[in-house]
Amino acid sequence: MLRSSVEFIQLIEDDLVTAGGKRIRPRLALLASQALGGVPHELELALAVELLHSATLLHDDLVDDAETRRGREAAFRKYGNAVSVLAGDYLLSRVLFLLSETGRIELVRLFAEAARLLAEGEVLQFQAAAYQEYSEAQYYRIIDSKTAALMRAATEGAAVLGNADPSAREALARFGRAYGMAFQMRDDYLDLMGEPGQMGKPVGGDVREGKVTLITLWLLEEKPSLVKEVFLRRAGREGDVERLRELAEGSGVARRVVEAIRTRVREAVEALAPLPATDAKSALEALALAELQRLQ
Amino acid sequence: MLRSSVEFIQLIEDDLVTAGGKRIRPRLALLASQALGGVPHELELALAVELLHSATLLHDDLVDDAETRRGREAAFRKYGNAVSVLAGDYLLSRVLFLLSETGRIELVRLFAEAARLLAEGEVLQFQAAAYQEYSEAQYYRIIDSKTAALMRAATEGAAVLGNADPSAREALARFGRAYGMAFQMRDDYLDLMGEPGQMGKPVGGDVREGKVTLITLWLLEEKPSLVKEVFLRRAGREGDVERLRELAEGSGVARRVVEAIRTRVREAVEALAPLPATDAKSALEALALAELQRLQ
Repeated sequence: MLRSSVEFIQLIEDDLVTAGGKRIRPRLALLASQALGGVPHELELALAVELLHSATLLHDDLVDDAETRRGREAAFRKYGNAVSVLAGDYLLSRVLFLLSETGRIELVRLFAEAARLLAEGEVLQFQAAAYQEYSEAQYYRIIDSKTAALMRAATEGAAVLGNADPSAREALARFGRAYGMAFQMRDDYLDLMGEPGQMGKPVGGDVREGKVTLITLWLLEEKPSLVKEVFLRRAGREGDVERLRELAEGSGVARRVVEAIRTRVREAVEALAPLPATDAKSALEALALAELQRLQ
Repeated sequence: MLRSSVEFIQLIEDDLVTAGGKRIRPRLALLASQALGGVPHELELALAVELLHSATLLHDDLVDDAETRRGREAAFRKYGNAVSVLAGDYLLSRVLFLLSETGRIELVRLFAEAARLLAEGEVLQFQAAAYQEYSEAQYYRIIDSKTAALMRAATEGAAVLGNADPSAREALARFGRAYGMAFQMRDDYLDLMGEPGQMGKPVGGDVREGKVTLITLWLLEEKPSLVKEVFLRRAGREGDVERLRELAEGSGVARRVVEAIRTRVREAVEALAPLPATDAKSALEALALAELQRLQ
């Protein structure tokens, strides 16, 4: 799907393919398909969600100014911002092609909505940082848009392709969204609270980038002056990240965030109730429950 | 179509709307529709081609490092590269939505192909500059991809929406492509040979950016050492651009390029032969012939 006769594009796409990644979005699409007994064009759907995700990674490398992505030199540092953005656009054109291959205009509409939310969520995150406007409602809106929307498209897309009845479609849509929220909340939580050795990257990256997430939002309420100072100096003083970690443990904020994640995981699992018991349904449940591992 | 509840997106899209531009692509789509007696969802098609074009402008501002676009401060200088790229992605999500509104999966496929060529053409241009690999064949391939493909989607898209018979569809596809080539060749020609007062920007911009087009490619063949030197110093010496202009006039290269444009214009006009005589067909012909004005 990513073969291109233009060498610079091919180089970046080769990197994307060989760099791997967890491929969580296509797994969601394929499991949702299997939970419905298999749907036509499930592979096109699985590829489309992964390529849309990959395109946002290529475009986000600029946003985050990330030095590394999936443990490799970020593509844009090798070939320049320009080629990264355009290679992302190339991926988006392949998403369009895959959607056309399914023959289902309703899937195009579903992806239009997911892609809109993705872009809005990323910009909103940028805007919140620029204005230093943070709230719990805004945090949830950002992760709902930038992460949960595409997870939902992965699972609901299978329902569209399978012409599933409304209750099954609603079940998969709700699962994808709740799972996506839990996924991002767990990711944000571990960014500060994870075991340094197990993360593959240093803890506290979000704080150093000035990115407020649920845990630091609640820490701000707990001890405003300390947490503001740490953010203002981007955790630049020795022991800053450790101080936030200790505060999160001592104040009970860490435990509250884990509870919030648990709520979303429970929501995801309960959403699947209308679906018949199958291995695929169990696998989706297990995927959601796995978000609670390693948390405390 | 561009209303967003995210302020930073809204600001950039407002800029795009009020900044104007020639809106040549939607005009192509609407005239093609009228040449077929009107087709359903012509407005969605017209909007989709313009928004896809606008998205590439937002992503190209990075590529070209353009200081201004349509006489305004480039969006990315106001809000940062990141927001520009994401605002472009937002536009692409709206293109997807518009396509879904037409209900025609075949149009989705047509846009997938155009979007693929757009991205490949832009990267190819970047790659050619990086490797300093220039040839006439590559020049034509680049402009066919980065410009003609979308013009073709605008006109052929109308045929898809109107379920036009194969000969009418082929006529509009060939017109859009030939017109797009002529359009870009005229643009590249005037970049060096235009009247400085009438351009709204200084002549010789492509040379200063190290971008080889048909006219400088042929000038390179005519007088390799001089033209190479001018390119190597990015026209940095007083009178460099004037020297190239004089060489183009004196050597007959300018005239040959105008002839090449004339060939494409003729091809565009002839492509329309299978269509019945209508005001819209005449307007399309006039659009093509207008590319020959101001050329000498």
